[in-house]
Amino acid sequence: MPGNSFGQLFRITTCGESHGGAVAVIVDGCPPNLEINENDIQQELDRRKPGQSAITTPRKEADRIHILSGVFEGKTTGTPILLVAYNSDAQPQDYEHLKSIYRPSHADFSYLKKYGRRDFRGSGRASARETLARVAAGAIAKKYLQQHFNIEVLSFVEQVGHIRTDIDHNIVNLAAIENNLVRCPDEKTAKEMITLIEKVQSEQDSVGGIIKGVIRNVPAGLGEPVFDKLSADLGKAMLSINAVKGFDIGSGFAGISLKGSEHNDAFILKEDIVTTKTNHAGGVLGGISTGETIYFRVAFKAVATIGQKQETLTVAHQKVSLEAAGRHDPCVLPRAVPIVDAMSALVIMDHVLRHKAQNQ
Amino acid sequence: MPGNSFGQLFRITTCGESHGGAVAVIVDGCPPNLEINENDIQQELDRRKPGQSAITTPRKEADRIHILSGVFEGKTTGTPILLVAYNSDAQPQDYEHLKSIYRPSHADFSYLKKYGRRDFRGSGRASARETLARVAAGAIAKKYLQQHFNIEVLSFVEQVGHIRTDIDHNIVNLAAIENNLVRCPDEKTAKEMITLIEKVQSEQDSVGGIIKGVIRNVPAGLGEPVFDKLSADLGKAMLSINAVKGFDIGSGFAGISLKGSEHNDAFILKEDIVTTKTNHAGGVLGGISTGETIYFRVAFKAVATIGQKQETLTVAHQKVSLEAAGRHDPCVLPRAVPIVDAMSALVIMDHVLRHKAQNQ
Amino acid sequence: MPGNSFGQLFRITTCGESHGGAVAVIVDGCPPNLEINENDIQQELDRRKPGQSAITTPRKEADRIHILSGVFEGKTTGTPILLVAYNSDAQPQDYEHLKSIYRPSHADFSYLKKYGRRDFRGSGRASARETLARVAAGAIAKKYLQQHFNIEVLSFVEQVGHIRTDIDHNIVNLAAIENNLVRCPDEKTAKEMITLIEKVQSEQDSVGGIIKGVIRNVPAGLGEPVFDKLSADLGKAMLSINAVKGFDIGSGFAGISLKGSEHNDAFILKEDIVTTKTNHAGGVLGGISTGETIYFRVAFKAVATIGQKQETLTVAHQKVSLEAAGRHDPCVLPRAVPIVDAMSALVIMDHVLRHKAQNQ
Amino acid sequence: MPGNSFGQLFRITTCGESHGGAVAVIVDGCPPNLEINENDIQQELDRRKPGQSAITTPRKEADRIHILSGVFEGKTTGTPILLVAYNSDAQPQDYEHLKSIYRPSHADFSYLKKYGRRDFRGSGRASARETLARVAAGAIAKKYLQQHFNIEVLSFVEQVGHIRTDIDHNIVNLAAIENNLVRCPDEKTAKEMITLIEKVQSEQDSVGGIIKGVIRNVPAGLGEPVFDKLSADLGKAMLSINAVKGFDIGSGFAGISLKGSEHNDAFILKEDIVTTKTNHAGGVLGGISTGETIYFRVAFKAVATIGQKQETLTVAHQKVSLEAAGRHDPCVLPRAVPIVDAMSALVIMDHVLRHKAQNQ
Repeated sequence: MPGNSFGQLFRITTCGESHGGAVAVIVDGCPPNLEINENDIQQELDRRKPGQSAITTPRKEADRIHILSGVFEGKTTGTPILLVAYNSDAQPQDYEHLKSIYRPSHADFSYLKKYGRRDFRGSGRASARETLARVAAGAIAKKYLQQHFNIEVLSFVEQVGHIRTDIDHNIVNLAAIENNLVRCPDEKTAKEMITLIEKVQSEQDSVGGIIKGVIRNVPAGLGEPVFDKLSADLGKAMLSINAVKGFDIGSGFAGISLKGSEHNDAFILKEDIVTTKTNHAGGVLGGISTGETIYFRVAFKAVATIGQKQETLTVAHQKVSLEAAGRHDPCVLPRAVPIVDAMSALVIMDHVLRHKAQNQ
Repeated sequence: MPGNSFGQLFRITTCGESHGGAVAVIVDGCPPNLEINENDIQQELDRRKPGQSAITTPRKEADRIHILSGVFEGKTTGTPILLVAYNSDAQPQDYEHLKSIYRPSHADFSYLKKYGRRDFRGSGRASARETLARVAAGAIAKKYLQQHFNIEVLSFVEQVGHIRTDIDHNIVNLAAIENNLVRCPDEKTAKEMITLIEKVQSEQDSVGGIIKGVIRNVPAGLGEPVFDKLSADLGKAMLSINAVKGFDIGSGFAGISLKGSEHNDAFILKEDIVTTKTNHAGGVLGGISTGETIYFRVAFKAVATIGQKQETLTVAHQKVSLEAAGRHDPCVLPRAVPIVDAMSALVIMDHVLRHKAQNQ
Repeated sequence: MPGNSFGQLFRITTCGESHGGAVAVIVDGCPPNLEINENDIQQELDRRKPGQSAITTPRKEADRIHILSGVFEGKTTGTPILLVAYNSDAQPQDYEHLKSIYRPSHADFSYLKKYGRRDFRGSGRASARETLARVAAGAIAKKYLQQHFNIEVLSFVEQVGHIRTDIDHNIVNLAAIENNLVRCPDEKTAKEMITLIEKVQSEQDSVGGIIKGVIRNVPAGLGEPVFDKLSADLGKAMLSINAVKGFDIGSGFAGISLKGSEHNDAFILKEDIVTTKTNHAGGVLGGISTGETIYFRVAFKAVATIGQKQETLTVAHQKVSLEAAGRHDPCVLPRAVPIVDAMSALVIMDHVLRHKAQNQ
Repeated sequence: MPGNSFGQLFRITTCGESHGGAVAVIVDGCPPNLEINENDIQQELDRRKPGQSAITTPRKEADRIHILSGVFEGKTTGTPILLVAYNSDAQPQDYEHLKSIYRPSHADFSYLKKYGRRDFRGSGRASARETLARVAAGAIAKKYLQQHFNIEVLSFVEQVGHIRTDIDHNIVNLAAIENNLVRCPDEKTAKEMITLIEKVQSEQDSVGGIIKGVIRNVPAGLGEPVFDKLSADLGKAMLSINAVKGFDIGSGFAGISLKGSEHNDAFILKEDIVTTKTNHAGGVLGGISTGETIYFRVAFKAVATIGQKQETLTVAHQKVSLEAAGRHDPCVLPRAVPIVDAMSALVIMDHVLRHKAQNQ
């Protein structure tokens, strides 16, 4: 299959460049009879959209979503759902000067090597605007999971540059996440993060960080060994997001220095339910959900577009100096939170359907 | 699709429990005319097999591979290749006492929740013996990539517990990796690692670590945005291996605290070839290979089977003490090196074919 | 996978109900650098659209196609192509009376059984308007095949009711097919067919028939045994079209009474090229193209919508009389010709890419 | 995906040449807890095996099946099932003389064009022995469908050469089918068919025919529009069988001359159940099962291997005379009956799981 579809049974296929006609997604396989309307989707998109605050890009992208098929009288019909957001803020002349430049750490070079040509307007298909389609589709999955399983999908900014919160993810809720611009539920750390981002912005630079994802109330049994382990599919989902360079689940990289006797999660009874004393596993054993909370970390590199002057090459192999024209995020993490949520919801939704097919 | 296939065009489907009749794999989509014989495959399997040394499990598993289809007169025919390793060391009575126990941090509980029943002999399908099939299939991919592109797939143990080498992966070669039991190409650190593993073993405990993967000479252009990015598929491949809890590529988790101006890899010319001054990207930009070396890290938790006594529950929710009967690895990393290699080769091979289909 | 995608590597995903917002298709996997514009696609759609003549439905559907992604500066970029035709002729009140009726031989009953609800406006997703998306996507495949392989994809009406032409498909060309309303290249028979259709129309009835498909200049080697044989994929493609009840290739059903000695196609040399004396195989042996002309037949039942009064049931199991309100084709075959062409092109295109991936 | 897998959720992957080590299949996605043993499978294979009677080939192929994974204590575990039949009757010297010959209407030429080389022993992968794997996997599906839905999968020989039974498929049962060598439940016609086959055999020739498939008790709602219609997937399944040149369902090719008013199946109530007065649809409307009996026809050409002398070409383009060495079926239809059954069961099983995933 070509690379623009995700999921096996709850399957999304996305398309659209940042400055073409539209960004869109077809959601195929959605169960019928789910109430869904454009507002349900729009509210997720509004968390992702640019221009939300002083620390995100001031672009006013057309992030208005339209449902063009698959929903009838307010409910899904089981047929494919088309969601479209038209591009309205196209300023292609902004990008004309980038036509023949390989921007450092952007996909210009690799796209050209792959396809022999590229849409150079605003990174084309490699633009983060592509993720709009993921968030839109994810909103449907999220609603279904909430309604049918009470599954809660959350994520928050855990680290920006060197500034890090060690807040316990078990006590985090959506209100606390949405309470500040940077989407870190630890207010004190959030302020430090904002200060750092503002400093970086003033230096015409950018900075990376870590988003922690949390998924609660996932029933035991989801995940398809041996390759489509729940942990593997979550990892792929996150690593497919622009600028992501790392993923770990449960104890992750930090857990490797624990001995087995320390790392093993003992099974215990709690109100007659089998649970585990600790949760180093992060809610997944043998690639299958255990019913414990799933949590993971996603590492984002600093965004490649910076205002500072950089030396690079043209397509014709000439040296050239590059200064970005200005509209960009100094730190993508606050806006990436709903993208992580969306990818979580899409993975869990797909595995709910896959598990049901074989085992229920 | 069910979860026992991997790859789109170079597609493997594996099967087999640790104590059933066999572990096997069908490789479908292999280009015809590749010279391959059982020895080519066996030599990779021998790197993975138990009982190689004092620091791995002393089991003598039947890791002898048989090619039963798809190869004629020493060459692939383009039809599916069946590789089978029969199970000979079945000692099911070793496992009878585990029939009704949830071993801590094993997949017993989650498999039972998923399927309603399980093969309890030696972890059944959740056994690491499953990876034999990956290594066998990977040997074919590895040979093809070496012959057609001079691609070199390597990996080595970078960290065991707290002991870590900071050897430059660019100078590592296979001989150095294979030079010691622990497959760490830094001899001094390797000795410390072995000492640690022996200590852990004597304590009837286990320990985790990190394997670093390196792939050289990958042509620019591989990877299928936006979901099947090369980095995302490598991540999924590694996260699908038993005991893996984390993956990062290029600068990874360590890179998040770099600013954009520090992290960006400047394009430069080197003998008329476009290359980059640094390689924080790890050989992938926008999900597509750049031609630079791909490198990544894979985090393995400490193996769950330990000799120490552990408290846990039975299937009937009774408390019980568990002591493992003894045959297990104190540290899986040395034997996991060829598994990481195999998964690397399978991912690259699949993307070679996918790229060719659309773009050449 | 859900059922709204077709093809493995040249993969289309369609959506849209007859009276929702739009009918659309995402084409993923198209090779880059193909010149394509809306006119290329529109001219195929115009062959399919209603209201072309007195013997087709007078509806004026909005069949205007828009390319919203994947094409830049007149050429494909290798990224997914979004084609949209908005619905403008929605007259939902026409369908209100059908809300709770099971129309005979329509999909009302089966859709309700499957999904628990349905969009009852104009058959919803089960409407033949869905095929617009196939024709649009097929136009891209057709152009690629023509340019890169000189492959010619044709089809024509061979039979309507009992009226049948025995014209040799080897001498048929597009001009002759397009020369009359019924798309039968045998002018004399075409007139009889038209007379029959007019008679059926005047009786408020409908009639079925056979379309013959012809594909020339397909290189030898396409098709993926043992399941994705070229003949099997062509069959599935055609049987997925609304109202199709049968498919045969080469000698087909007529050939079964031939003995092996009569049916076998002897290999002979013709200008130093291996060819066959006869072509009972229809251009496919062992599921793989031979280089000979591919030809096949597609059986269409009479369209289910008729003006005559019919007895049927309501959703509440009440008996009811039904008379169709009028806008329908007495014979779908003339308009189905470009649909058959499109499906042919999609199958061949997909197999061109699949073959290239493994074997070239 | 390469072409050796069939089904989306109940997915089989087959391998094996006629004279390699084995023919095998991995069945992935089978629900757990199904009782299955080698005898269940063997009895289906025994219906397919050569040497059953005077009118089939006298070869004694090793059709003994072995279950090597996925079944534990007599029941499926939900993990992939490996079924293997080793090849024992290899007489490669029988085929040496065919090494460089293009046999008329065999796949020698097209395989060579596709892959550049081929296993010439007994047609290699193109041998009908490949269908053994289908029958083995189909036996599992058949048992599941029978147990969970009381679905009955049948097929019988309806026509051999010009000899045809017009027996009503609704009154046919398995006992009647198995009652004679030719698997035609109409004893009088069966005798004529046998006489014809014996005559053809004595002439060292072969003959084709039609198998009619019948599937009873399929619940309404199976099938995945718009491409994976139940009728389309059945068609593909049948057209993927060696020597099949045609497929039609319900009224099929014969139905095209019916007018809509004749062809439409009126909905009626029968003991409070919605059913249809006639069943021209063949149990499928809009690609979705209606609950009525599914029936279809499959056209098989005369087998290409005949004893008579034939003129053909060598790989080096030399003219040559060919006389088959003798071991072949004069008519494949009797042995193809269980293959048709298997493919029916595989399609229905897959759609049962697909439907459950989205809609239940």
